[in-house]
Amino acid sequence: MSLDAVLSRLDADLPQATERLLGLLRIPSISTDPAYAADCRRAAEWLAEDLRSLGIEADLRDTPGHPMVVGHVPGEGRHLLFYGHYDVQPVDPLDLWHRDPFDPEVQDAPHGQVIRGRGAADDKGQLMTFIEACRAWKAVHGSLPGPITFFFEGEEESGSPSLVPFLEENRDELAAADLALICDTGLFAPGVPAICTQLRGMLQEEVTITGPDRDLHSGAYGGPAINPIRVLTRILAGLHDAEGRVTVPGFYDGVPELPETLRRQWEALGFDAEGFLGDVGLSVPAGETDRSALEQIWSRPTAEVNGIWGGYTGAGFKTVLPSQAHAKISFRLVGTQDPLAIRKAFRAMVEDALPADCTASFVGHGASPASQMAIGDPAFEAARRALSDEWPHEAAYVGGGGSIPIAGYFKSILEIDSLLIGFGKDDDQIHSPNEKYDMESFHRGMRSWARILDALT
Amino acid sequence: MSLDAVLSRLDADLPQATERLLGLLRIPSISTDPAYAADCRRAAEWLAEDLRSLGIEADLRDTPGHPMVVGHVPGEGRHLLFYGHYDVQPVDPLDLWHRDPFDPEVQDAPHGQVIRGRGAADDKGQLMTFIEACRAWKAVHGSLPGPITFFFEGEEESGSPSLVPFLEENRDELAAADLALICDTGLFAPGVPAICTQLRGMLQEEVTITGPDRDLHSGAYGGPAINPIRVLTRILAGLHDAEGRVTVPGFYDGVPELPETLRRQWEALGFDAEGFLGDVGLSVPAGETDRSALEQIWSRPTAEVNGIWGGYTGAGFKTVLPSQAHAKISFRLVGTQDPLAIRKAFRAMVEDALPADCTASFVGHGASPASQMAIGDPAFEAARRALSDEWPHEAAYVGGGGSIPIAGYFKSILEIDSLLIGFGKDDDQIHSPNEKYDMESFHRGMRSWARILDALT
Repeated sequence: MSLDAVLSRLDADLPQATERLLGLLRIPSISTDPAYAADCRRAAEWLAEDLRSLGIEADLRDTPGHPMVVGHVPGEGRHLLFYGHYDVQPVDPLDLWHRDPFDPEVQDAPHGQVIRGRGAADDKGQLMTFIEACRAWKAVHGSLPGPITFFFEGEEESGSPSLVPFLEENRDELAAADLALICDTGLFAPGVPAICTQLRGMLQEEVTITGPDRDLHSGAYGGPAINPIRVLTRILAGLHDAEGRVTVPGFYDGVPELPETLRRQWEALGFDAEGFLGDVGLSVPAGETDRSALEQIWSRPTAEVNGIWGGYTGAGFKTVLPSQAHAKISFRLVGTQDPLAIRKAFRAMVEDALPADCTASFVGHGASPASQMAIGDPAFEAARRALSDEWPHEAAYVGGGGSIPIAGYFKSILEIDSLLIGFGKDDDQIHSPNEKYDMESFHRGMRSWARILDALT
Repeated sequence: MSLDAVLSRLDADLPQATERLLGLLRIPSISTDPAYAADCRRAAEWLAEDLRSLGIEADLRDTPGHPMVVGHVPGEGRHLLFYGHYDVQPVDPLDLWHRDPFDPEVQDAPHGQVIRGRGAADDKGQLMTFIEACRAWKAVHGSLPGPITFFFEGEEESGSPSLVPFLEENRDELAAADLALICDTGLFAPGVPAICTQLRGMLQEEVTITGPDRDLHSGAYGGPAINPIRVLTRILAGLHDAEGRVTVPGFYDGVPELPETLRRQWEALGFDAEGFLGDVGLSVPAGETDRSALEQIWSRPTAEVNGIWGGYTGAGFKTVLPSQAHAKISFRLVGTQDPLAIRKAFRAMVEDALPADCTASFVGHGASPASQMAIGDPAFEAARRALSDEWPHEAAYVGGGGSIPIAGYFKSILEIDSLLIGFGKDDDQIHSPNEKYDMESFHRGMRSWARILDALT
């Protein structure tokens, strides 16, 4: 009965909730680019202020990077910790956006309304679903249902450099929680909610190959002078073998075979690989040749070049033989693959492949192992039932191809388990131009959290 | 006697000549970037005005790209056509310049004064050596020594798209000349002037590989979605075999073996491969393993990636799986290699290497065959003696690794031979940051042209 009142309140308040989200989306909190540092802080302040408007004691916590937002609701019973991130991805290539990424709006789309703008789905829209559920709960009941810690990060899209030190320094404060709720994942399929039970880890490396000590004219030097682009392309081309396996020595140490029960469970999900690839103009799974598309995403590690550059890249042509060539490479990790061991092996592999006269230098970005959730905890099944009540289809336990290292850190540093629940869709174009979040995701998302709060407290 | 007067006049006028060159260098005539179109026209107007100040009838000729400058001096006897180009290379990476590239100045350097700025050596400083020789000649004699056509191009650094149509449309006017003088090459070594008797041709290709129809998140799609950077690096890595030979089918059709006489002549030049590479921080010739460094530059064809880009290339990290990856590739050609046949073979090779779900698109930039000069013409030996009189060492006949397609077009369209004489040095950093031109090159260069005018008219 009281849950119904909260749900009704959420329905009635949806226009105001949408306006609030648009306000947050207008702040260009791109964490990876130092030019947006003040905007990141502004987004953090916006959130702390919004929590305070719910009577929650909340403040910013400075870090060497962007601030954390921490808020506490006291109370008795199961203590929940809710996590989301307020930072967003860069917006390039800007010319592919149909609209200013930071001038969001609600648009009509073939399958219903969408909220369009950078961060709509990743992760501002998602984190607001929980805040809105709390707002409605408070409006109906006068207080929240039990002790809740709010914890918002501003560096998730840039490798979370401050996260581990912050968790370690504030362990006593944050480890008071019993269970974490992390809202940064998606539905399994339209109308099918999901709890993510395993996530890939990630290792991010940036490599620079240097040949000649200056840019040269390819007429005067082409032939005898080594071209670092040629060296880099040869090294990167060798990252995969003919079967699509990653060639870094020792890379597959700790990669488990999929347990038969999980394989059967995943097969029962009826994943539409053809539709999944077809949505982005593709038709053939390009990963390891002996693995299904779903395995390639959820349970197999990868190596991807996320960026490459060197020489002249402007309009026209310039016959330069450049001094340097660069690449950003990420590895998605599974099982117990050790990111630091792989970093070492990758760097050694690059060094070993260098010809005379070339040197390599490296910058390590993020490094986090894969995560496996504690699905034995009855909270998982309670949350799954709550989700199933809200959505047209039964909720599923799924894997995830992305990397949300926070779950691993909550386990290893705070010793609390995490429930990964989110409402994004495959076509949300997160990290891409024209990112959007379905109004259905936003609306059913906040209703889902109300049901989960009801079930878990 | 009259030559001595001209040489003295050049010596006395050197400060004013330097000021004039600095004026021309201040105009940022970067032809490959449309943003500088007005500056290119301004450089052309500057030159036409300077020719007019010598009493030469000169004007701009519009093209679909940047204008040509044409000037005529009537007269009897051998008709010379002087060619230079007023456009310059882009200046990136700008942060490696120690000074604004377009705020040139004369600087003291360990081996004498240098003129520092973009275009100082390539080709504004060089073309001004000829104009200054004419200015002094005119000051001493009241007129120039015979019929001369001045022909300045503004698209040399961007593939000369307007050149062939212009030569064809103005064949009657330009083909009146008997011999072309092209000033866009260098000394063989410090103090050793050179006449270039063979030049490599060039083919420039830009390739774009497209995979998914939008940028993707490498967590959500990494594995099953093909990464176009991976495809591009694999294709580019396959451009050379283990012996450094280019793998494009049919690429070596028309590549001649070096004639024994030429080999002996080149060996006699005492080329210092170790010093040549050492000057740019290298030690090992990186081209075909069975060829000397000098052969690799002068008489062997090459393939070089001059630019590569795709995905996220900014600060920090972005785990994008990009829709597209791009490269600019140039081939230096020798003998009778056919640029258009190689373009076709290269594109077919790329198409053949594409995996499922990827497409390739191409933009062809420049395409010109290699050039071989008519060294049987007695003008060559006359010019060589004139050069030897000016410089500390005897002038040499040499090859050239760069591509100056104009000589081939003068031969094929205007049916006139070319004398390629220039005064640049290997350390001039043309196409690179901090380009310079030695004051000695500028001064002895103008004196050289005065001697050559005297010898050839």
